[in-house]
Amino acid sequence: MLLAHNDCIVFAGDSVTDMGSQTPVGEGLFENLGSGKSYVRQVESLLAAVYPEREIRVVNAGISGNTSRDLLARWERDVLPYHPQWVSICIGINDVWRQFDCPAQKEWHVLPEEYRENVEKMILSVKSMAKGILLITPYYMEPCKQDALRVRMAEYADILRELAEKHGCTFIDLQAAFDAYFQYRHSSYIAWDRIHPNYVGATLIARLVLSHLGFDYNHVPDKGE
Amino acid sequence: MLLAHNDCIVFAGDSVTDMGSQTPVGEGLFENLGSGKSYVRQVESLLAAVYPEREIRVVNAGISGNTSRDLLARWERDVLPYHPQWVSICIGINDVWRQFDCPAQKEWHVLPEEYRENVEKMILSVKSMAKGILLITPYYMEPCKQDALRVRMAEYADILRELAEKHGCTFIDLQAAFDAYFQYRHSSYIAWDRIHPNYVGATLIARLVLSHLGFDYNHVPDKGE
Amino acid sequence: MLLAHNDCIVFAGDSVTDMGSQTPVGEGLFENLGSGKSYVRQVESLLAAVYPEREIRVVNAGISGNTSRDLLARWERDVLPYHPQWVSICIGINDVWRQFDCPAQKEWHVLPEEYRENVEKMILSVKSMAKGILLITPYYMEPCKQDALRVRMAEYADILRELAEKHGCTFIDLQAAFDAYFQYRHSSYIAWDRIHPNYVGATLIARLVLSHLGFDYNHVPDKGE
Amino acid sequence: MLLAHNDCIVFAGDSVTDMGSQTPVGEGLFENLGSGKSYVRQVESLLAAVYPEREIRVVNAGISGNTSRDLLARWERDVLPYHPQWVSICIGINDVWRQFDCPAQKEWHVLPEEYRENVEKMILSVKSMAKGILLITPYYMEPCKQDALRVRMAEYADILRELAEKHGCTFIDLQAAFDAYFQYRHSSYIAWDRIHPNYVGATLIARLVLSHLGFDYNHVPDKGE
Amino acid sequence: MLLAHNDCIVFAGDSVTDMGSQTPVGEGLFENLGSGKSYVRQVESLLAAVYPEREIRVVNAGISGNTSRDLLARWERDVLPYHPQWVSICIGINDVWRQFDCPAQKEWHVLPEEYRENVEKMILSVKSMAKGILLITPYYMEPCKQDALRVRMAEYADILRELAEKHGCTFIDLQAAFDAYFQYRHSSYIAWDRIHPNYVGATLIARLVLSHLGFDYNHVPDKGE
Amino acid sequence: MLLAHNDCIVFAGDSVTDMGSQTPVGEGLFENLGSGKSYVRQVESLLAAVYPEREIRVVNAGISGNTSRDLLARWERDVLPYHPQWVSICIGINDVWRQFDCPAQKEWHVLPEEYRENVEKMILSVKSMAKGILLITPYYMEPCKQDALRVRMAEYADILRELAEKHGCTFIDLQAAFDAYFQYRHSSYIAWDRIHPNYVGATLIARLVLSHLGFDYNHVPDKGE
Amino acid sequence: MLLAHNDCIVFAGDSVTDMGSQTPVGEGLFENLGSGKSYVRQVESLLAAVYPEREIRVVNAGISGNTSRDLLARWERDVLPYHPQWVSICIGINDVWRQFDCPAQKEWHVLPEEYRENVEKMILSVKSMAKGILLITPYYMEPCKQDALRVRMAEYADILRELAEKHGCTFIDLQAAFDAYFQYRHSSYIAWDRIHPNYVGATLIARLVLSHLGFDYNHVPDKGE
Amino acid sequence: MLLAHNDCIVFAGDSVTDMGSQTPVGEGLFENLGSGKSYVRQVESLLAAVYPEREIRVVNAGISGNTSRDLLARWERDVLPYHPQWVSICIGINDVWRQFDCPAQKEWHVLPEEYRENVEKMILSVKSMAKGILLITPYYMEPCKQDALRVRMAEYADILRELAEKHGCTFIDLQAAFDAYFQYRHSSYIAWDRIHPNYVGATLIARLVLSHLGFDYNHVPDKGE
Repeated sequence: MLLAHNDCIVFAGDSVTDMGSQTPVGEGLFENLGSGKSYVRQVESLLAAVYPEREIRVVNAGISGNTSRDLLARWERDVLPYHPQWVSICIGINDVWRQFDCPAQKEWHVLPEEYRENVEKMILSVKSMAKGILLITPYYMEPCKQDALRVRMAEYADILRELAEKHGCTFIDLQAAFDAYFQYRHSSYIAWDRIHPNYVGATLIARLVLSHLGFDYNHVPDKGE
Repeated sequence: MLLAHNDCIVFAGDSVTDMGSQTPVGEGLFENLGSGKSYVRQVESLLAAVYPEREIRVVNAGISGNTSRDLLARWERDVLPYHPQWVSICIGINDVWRQFDCPAQKEWHVLPEEYRENVEKMILSVKSMAKGILLITPYYMEPCKQDALRVRMAEYADILRELAEKHGCTFIDLQAAFDAYFQYRHSSYIAWDRIHPNYVGATLIARLVLSHLGFDYNHVPDKGE
Repeated sequence: MLLAHNDCIVFAGDSVTDMGSQTPVGEGLFENLGSGKSYVRQVESLLAAVYPEREIRVVNAGISGNTSRDLLARWERDVLPYHPQWVSICIGINDVWRQFDCPAQKEWHVLPEEYRENVEKMILSVKSMAKGILLITPYYMEPCKQDALRVRMAEYADILRELAEKHGCTFIDLQAAFDAYFQYRHSSYIAWDRIHPNYVGATLIARLVLSHLGFDYNHVPDKGE
Repeated sequence: MLLAHNDCIVFAGDSVTDMGSQTPVGEGLFENLGSGKSYVRQVESLLAAVYPEREIRVVNAGISGNTSRDLLARWERDVLPYHPQWVSICIGINDVWRQFDCPAQKEWHVLPEEYRENVEKMILSVKSMAKGILLITPYYMEPCKQDALRVRMAEYADILRELAEKHGCTFIDLQAAFDAYFQYRHSSYIAWDRIHPNYVGATLIARLVLSHLGFDYNHVPDKGE
Repeated sequence: MLLAHNDCIVFAGDSVTDMGSQTPVGEGLFENLGSGKSYVRQVESLLAAVYPEREIRVVNAGISGNTSRDLLARWERDVLPYHPQWVSICIGINDVWRQFDCPAQKEWHVLPEEYRENVEKMILSVKSMAKGILLITPYYMEPCKQDALRVRMAEYADILRELAEKHGCTFIDLQAAFDAYFQYRHSSYIAWDRIHPNYVGATLIARLVLSHLGFDYNHVPDKGE
Repeated sequence: MLLAHNDCIVFAGDSVTDMGSQTPVGEGLFENLGSGKSYVRQVESLLAAVYPEREIRVVNAGISGNTSRDLLARWERDVLPYHPQWVSICIGINDVWRQFDCPAQKEWHVLPEEYRENVEKMILSVKSMAKGILLITPYYMEPCKQDALRVRMAEYADILRELAEKHGCTFIDLQAAFDAYFQYRHSSYIAWDRIHPNYVGATLIARLVLSHLGFDYNHVPDKGE
Repeated sequence: MLLAHNDCIVFAGDSVTDMGSQTPVGEGLFENLGSGKSYVRQVESLLAAVYPEREIRVVNAGISGNTSRDLLARWERDVLPYHPQWVSICIGINDVWRQFDCPAQKEWHVLPEEYRENVEKMILSVKSMAKGILLITPYYMEPCKQDALRVRMAEYADILRELAEKHGCTFIDLQAAFDAYFQYRHSSYIAWDRIHPNYVGATLIARLVLSHLGFDYNHVPDKGE
Repeated sequence: MLLAHNDCIVFAGDSVTDMGSQTPVGEGLFENLGSGKSYVRQVESLLAAVYPEREIRVVNAGISGNTSRDLLARWERDVLPYHPQWVSICIGINDVWRQFDCPAQKEWHVLPEEYRENVEKMILSVKSMAKGILLITPYYMEPCKQDALRVRMAEYADILRELAEKHGCTFIDLQAAFDAYFQYRHSSYIAWDRIHPNYVGATLIARLVLSHLGFDYNHVPDKGE
């Protein structure tokens, strides 16, 4: 697995990442990493349960309602001080959502060009220090590919894909993973509002993230490793 | 307008009708008819504001989570005692929803045949006493017509249409009204979970219901009427 | 209708406007615009339901307990930054009410001359930028025209009427609208304390405001408009 | 003073009497007799402060929202067991109020004939055991005598006056007392909703009730009395 | 009565005065003057009920737990800005109480000499502006005159008496009034903890204070007064 | 010490015993035995800390507000099922207190003769099964021996003393213990209302009770004991 | 994997199973299956995420504080009506714990012989209907094998092992799994009280249970399966 | 006993000391010294009950979650201003615990060398002013001496022992006291999480601390002492 003993991984994002975690940043005991519906909470539980011989610091830097603009504004305060070996960025949903549920509030909308700049600034600030950067696509749990919000979200995901290629980041296509799942279950099974995953939805995200980190569920720890 | 002085209209349904109204049945002061996001609350407000010369009794008999099976079970207790001149039935969403978000809980699902029987029993019990019966389609605020849940919901709406024709009820195609609206706004603008309307969504429902009752927004009351 | 696509309208006022809206200023999702008993909430719902093809920004800048003195003091912070095309001012109730329910607290009373100055300053500050300014009369839902508080309130309404004429504002005689309604229903039907409207009372206000804006309830949106 | 050592007085009524007292009946320590806005609480405090040498049992049998119909239904349970020397009845406000704020809910209205019967049954049930029965008029703190609700309330007060004369009860014209007070202060000074008194309003009621009981504020207790 | 139209009276003190009033200073509507167990609340209610033709501003400047040291520290902020015609000071209970229930916390104790200085500073600061200053003795509702706490409290009351004579203030011997009452009722009847009065206890205080202000309970207001 | 391994002791009483314990009867984990201000809680803690080699079942059967009449009524349900080796009865405070703080509520008063009968019935019901019965005097933390309530309480304590002698019970003179303590500290130091002990007051009671049980604070447990 | 499409599995147990699930039995949406710290919640999430093509009904029948005696008493009501293909039993911790934290409350202790009988009755009642029965050992997250509570718990685990062999159930040695984990992490890392697992602890249990059910984390669903 | 009349003793520590006491420092009435599960609360109660003739100021300066680093940082603010004659320090549990329950959060760990420095600084700052300094060992209520956390905790206790010898402080071996107790009762009897004592556990601590202060439970106060 890619995460080594003593590595630190910071998950930055919005409410999907936050899910009740300590504000602004949480780690360690109790609900600090978020409730059971936080994929970060699930990622940490699986890492600790399966790889107990490695001490991996997992940090939840998600805050509900954040756009990429909000996240960039607090990047220096909430992410950089951890000097993380790994950084995960899952942002953009609110950049798009507000364009559809608050159409008249124009200055709340973060348009694609600004989104690209915001995320690229985040990448550049950690690129030299990190072993890896995960870029997780914003998504809409809407099976219909012609849905206007979903179409718009895809533009942002494409920007993320370009940035991943340009900067050598790990691109995680969460939208594609949900689409695959919807072949079997209806989207309402994992989220009523097409955005906030329930327990099962968070498990899907956690499993996808871990698969990109080389996580082996059947790993047997070895004292001498 | 069809509702006459001293008429009583009972709105039976699930959480879309209920919206915080008094349980099991509410009317009169305070939030008894539900919060501002209840279309019943809005219907009553418009009737009272525009037609103050007519005293119309408006009753909210919606209960959250109800399927047609649940509603039928309490019909005698919650609807019949009012001897209503008008009865509105908006049921079926949970009959379908549970098939998709709780697929393994089979006995929670109300299948089309039972739905037809349940609603027909309701109709028959009030047919002779009522001046009119409104049948409002269950709906899914999903723009994609191929969505499996929406397809399933349409079966139930079709049953309702058949029953309306068979028994001479007023058929209100709420699904169609939402579809028309989605030409202009995204579904997330009026409901995040594609079911529970926000204030704007409730206004859409209230306006549609009132239009079937011959409501005239520009009506000027006349003392001698 | 007067409100055009991309227009912004700010409703400034006291508790009648506020009704649980976000403090100091609210707009957008959830209860930000106030509960269902806020006429602003109802205005926005009707605009969005009937004119979905126009994106109109509706802002609630009401704060409970405000007199015209309080509103003027926060005018620069709460109203001007929106550069609104339309401004609605409904203030003065507390200027008068405190003279009757707190007679000994003299410095809490805002007398007519100060009221005139306060409102005129508000008008002047937005006159050049706005397409229209609505002046809504303070009122007392008291059918008896000789009631001392009502008589006093009428003085303030008269000042408002003069200011409207002087500055070409739209004058909305809410007191007169309530009086007309009391021909049919008792004032306790829409407000127990003669000030704070319930759902029906708020609908009366919303309908009156919209009528001055050329709102057509039967409007059918047209994509090509 | 009329109340003698060891006498018991029960105050029966609606929310004006209740004001947070223990349900269904309260007496003794803490808030059992109601908050400071209960005239019963004030009556007891004045009796105990000024006449400490007499132990007078004061009982609050008011329940919010009660009409004369509700009060009669619980009369045997809540009033008779105390074998009171004195009974005070202040009921009727809700009998009338619902006719105006819930006009469509006809069966919630208690009409004059039923009101007369209800109160007379109460009187008859205690007439032989009691030293005195106080009949306090229902009221509406509305200065305008032509107000429809006030006119209607006056009908009920008249019935009370007739019953008082017929059965030799003490008639307490609370409406008249409020009217006298409104020569000096506006009705909003003692109640915003024209019904529920604030502290000052409750003091007015308590003082009026006590004056009919021969209460002497300047009384000096005497050990040998 | 001594209090004239447009006079202002400020009641300064500790929890006995405060009793849930607005912090730091309260007046006007709602519970601003304290709950029904505040003698200030009762004084205001009686003044307003019996003398409606005079507008008298009543201000509650009591704060729970205050010693004379605490009260002096906030005197300039909480009392002087009102330019009161009348000032009432009821302080000292906590100065003494802490000597007995927190004997080891020496710096919490306010000793007699400091008490004298604190109160004298208050008197001097308002002496020239006020028509009258009321000095209400601290007290202990303990019938036993040999009780150590009561003996100590009497020292403070004596200081107050001396200050009243020296500066021409009105001396109100509340301890004596309670003693007189205890001839008829046990102290537990008006306060369980010998300090905080219940409703009846507050009525005793209010009546005593009013008697020193020439209050006439049987006063009949006269329009031409 | 008198309490042997496997003995059970039930403490019956009123709020002084109860102090937040589980209702109606509490034992075991958490706050079941009451808060830290319960002498039962302190007794159990000292027994368990000093005599860990003996398993002693400690049961709190106190309920706030109980008179001897109330306690007797639930004796069969709350005390007898435990088949206790030891029973402690501390009752009577409310029998007396209500005579002074609720003088008009005669049927709430439990007079001496009834008190004697109530307690004697309790004694007789457990006399044959118990190794010992503790009778703890009701008390009033009033230093003044002439205080009427204290004088009355002493009558009840005397009855208890007589019953103890007649039936061979252990008589615990709690009133005398408090009196001794008041030579050093004022009564307000251990209870503001002269009834409900604070932590220190509860420690005094616990220590007194334990001293009658032969408790040795310096005991060293011995495995072979 | 052993669990087939349309299978139902009921998890019966105590607080470790319950963890905030609906009482007495929960399944389906929201927190019905318990919080994220419930291994049942995690089992269901993994099954649904990895095997979406199979609809498996997962039921949480755990109740906090239950001993085997309590579980048996509600077995007929809470487990049998589901006609489960699979039953998991994790009970016994409270049978033992109370012997150590409530040593004097003898009748709260469930001794080994009764434990054996209780569990065997459960097994027998479902043996014929179920495809498989899982017996999960009670445990104590105490690394020290000589600890008295742990030694006692081992007796109960041994009984479970015998019953598993006798009746052909699946024996899941959870105590052994925890012991293996404690080679890498201290027990306080997954539970402070050695009983209630945190998120990581619950993940360990869920993974162990799933491994006995042939769960494959890397499974790829196939429409045609 | 060592504590003399007018002495002050400050108990500094973490949650074991804090237990709900006023933050940051508490003393005097109510729960200021912590709940009944605070050994400080119990120490004060015993001192005051047994030695009423000595006024001893007891101060709780514990704050939950504190490590020695945290305590040192607030030492000047929270301890020194009291000029205590006696200082008790019970710190170190969190220094060690976080190494085991938050292994990846390295900067939360306080290692032995820093611990020694932190505590020594505290000692040096009060050494000259205090009559005595109590050093209470951090502990782990784990009977198994090979447990890694316990082994680690012992290192810190050893440092404390060295510091006590070096600076002439009173060394209180709380770990040893718990070990002795566990010969009779299981550790779960006094604390489920092996750290936070329940009532009985706190009594053990209080008794141990008092024994080092020469406390005599059977002391009889003497006025002339």
